Amino acid sequence: MTTLSPTLTLAAELIRRPSVTPEDFGCQELMIERLQALGFQIERLRFEDTDNFWARRGTEGPLLCFAGHTDVVPTGPLEKWDSPPFEPSFRDGYLYGRGAADMKGSLAAMITAVERFIDHHPDHKGSIAFLITSDEEGPFINGTVRVIETLEARQEKITWCIVGEPSSTEKVGDIIKNGRRGSISGHLQVKGIQGHVAYPHLVDNPIHKAAPALAELAQTRWDNGNAFFPPTSFQISNIHAGTGATNVVPGEVDVQFNFRFSTESTAEQLQQRTEAVLNKHSLDYQLKWTLSGHPFLTAEGDLVAACVESIKAVAGYDTELSTSGGTSDGRFIAPTGAQVVELGPVNATIHKINECVRSKDLDTLSDLYENIMARLLS
Amino acid sequence: MTTLSPTLTLAAELIRRPSVTPEDFGCQELMIERLQALGFQIERLRFEDTDNFWARRGTEGPLLCFAGHTDVVPTGPLEKWDSPPFEPSFRDGYLYGRGAADMKGSLAAMITAVERFIDHHPDHKGSIAFLITSDEEGPFINGTVRVIETLEARQEKITWCIVGEPSSTEKVGDIIKNGRRGSISGHLQVKGIQGHVAYPHLVDNPIHKAAPALAELAQTRWDNGNAFFPPTSFQISNIHAGTGATNVVPGEVDVQFNFRFSTESTAEQLQQRTEAVLNKHSLDYQLKWTLSGHPFLTAEGDLVAACVESIKAVAGYDTELSTSGGTSDGRFIAPTGAQVVELGPVNATIHKINECVRSKDLDTLSDLYENIMARLLS
Ligand SMILES: [Zn+2]
Ligand SMILES: [Zn+2]
Repeated sequence: MTTLSPTLTLAAELIRRPSVTPEDFGCQELMIERLQALGFQIERLRFEDTDNFWARRGTEGPLLCFAGHTDVVPTGPLEKWDSPPFEPSFRDGYLYGRGAADMKGSLAAMITAVERFIDHHPDHKGSIAFLITSDEEGPFINGTVRVIETLEARQEKITWCIVGEPSSTEKVGDIIKNGRRGSISGHLQVKGIQGHVAYPHLVDNPIHKAAPALAELAQTRWDNGNAFFPPTSFQISNIHAGTGATNVVPGEVDVQFNFRFSTESTAEQLQQRTEAVLNKHSLDYQLKWTLSGHPFLTAEGDLVAACVESIKAVAGYDTELSTSGGTSDGRFIAPTGAQVVELGPVNATIHKINECVRSKDLDTLSDLYENIMARLLS
Repeated sequence: MTTLSPTLTLAAELIRRPSVTPEDFGCQELMIERLQALGFQIERLRFEDTDNFWARRGTEGPLLCFAGHTDVVPTGPLEKWDSPPFEPSFRDGYLYGRGAADMKGSLAAMITAVERFIDHHPDHKGSIAFLITSDEEGPFINGTVRVIETLEARQEKITWCIVGEPSSTEKVGDIIKNGRRGSISGHLQVKGIQGHVAYPHLVDNPIHKAAPALAELAQTRWDNGNAFFPPTSFQISNIHAGTGATNVVPGEVDVQFNFRFSTESTAEQLQQRTEAVLNKHSLDYQLKWTLSGHPFLTAEGDLVAACVESIKAVAGYDTELSTSGGTSDGRFIAPTGAQVVELGPVNATIHKINECVRSKDLDTLSDLYENIMARLLS
């Protein structure tokens, strides 16, 4: 067996810690040890059951921050894995293990990139920071949100933020995410009058009342998107009414839906337009909204330019900017005014059985992170 | 305490037997004993877990049949009853107990009516019969359906059938049911393509596809009913889709619905019209139909006339003919060509806590049954 690179060695050490969300299982202390050796100031920020830390090297601006999470999603059935998910396994040029792609590989690449960069530029411009949480895969209440609150309270501002989420689809760096759609969910309860199907004049069927309103919501074109975002989409994820008895009209129907929205709509507009449809259909309803995140966009600027140029220089190809896909903690960082980009490995196997990452992609990723630092801070 | 009438005494004895569906608990043997003493030929017809019997006195036509069930619905929480449900309790002019109104009171009234009638008319015209089951409140598979099959197989025909279901609303005999709507249920599964809400172009939301079709079905006027039946009604009783996860579009939606239909529509027409709506909306669906019963109507004839006249003669008021309300075993008897009427006590408390019947109503009911027999068979 050939000797592993520092990045792969560290990635394997992180994978070996079974940090199923919200557990950190010592991953952060491993990172902290390496960062302390480089002169980072460490601030451990545990909120409730969640370990987080903020590490900073330098006191001046601009501030380049690496953001990520040490927690991983559950393994699923162990017997389906070809090798145990928390025993890192190198096979056929790939590193297998839960978190290999999402995102312990990125964390390792960040650390080794910073180590090399500081070795070459001990007196770099500005500051370098790490914002690391262990609840990104969980309810995201006591993680990045609270760390950002802490920073905002003392007006500590991130200039550029690289989130290590697996943004790539075919080869590392082929896609970077320079924004994300917003996400807002609604929990709707439409009320009627329960009763026996044999006495239709005594019931008021809430399913019958809701159906045309839901049909209208499903058919609505909310906006047309723009150059950076696809059109806003509305999806009903759950609908439930009735106890199983086939001779009883239920008293209410329960509906859950979600908007993924572009910067062409605001959360407030979507709420108002939804309620206008419900009101137009004269529904007796309760509706609870949960805003998961406003859309954000980092269209222009030094960070996107540095990423694009580094990928061209290191990997040799053009990257594509995208705002598609799921949410990430970038949504909590962007509102502070930071430029935010997600750049990480190929996401084909994330959250799946036999999660893996191409071994040399992690070395490339580490080179990319180092190259970006060099463009921004040297 | 005053002496109880024979009808009330027998009703109390039947209530004391806790014959929760499909149990008979000796109720039928109690009835059989009384009927044997009157010269009835008894045919015990046990199918699977269900006791039934057919009793007949006489070999000639016309055949007047009393039909009913010895099983009762469960009691619900015992602590909510003011007196134990299987201990008959006479209070304030009422007889309390599970089955008092539905329909052990009617069974007792039938037996005592027949006893008096035969005492006065030992050589009555035609024949008298009892068709008694213990699964009317259950799945109605091994009860009246199978007894009727047995009779049909040997071409034994019922001319007139009085079902003892509690048809009355204020006072005994104020309403008789001379028909019932049909009932047909559909179990619909609409298929789509499951996926993450963040990737709307990869999903095909079955809730979105079903909603306009369900809205159209709910708004359809199926027919206008007629002099005997209200318009056919369509009710969705259950709709379920989604596992609770708010970021996943489910792969299918599951819908259950029921038609209560008049004689202006056939089951086949309703099925075809429903499927036409689903097809028009280009749904990918599976639909399973369950026919619970065709509508039946006994509009004219000797039986309705005898009931109307007896109620006027015995109780002193006009009765109302109705086809509303739930189903009864009448739906299985009417298709043989029998005239079928439901005549029983007030139904206000059936299937409820503290089920009861006005004591003197049972004596009146017995008089009514006897009077009807006299009109038809003497
Ligand atoms: Zn992640
Ligand atoms: Zn009944």
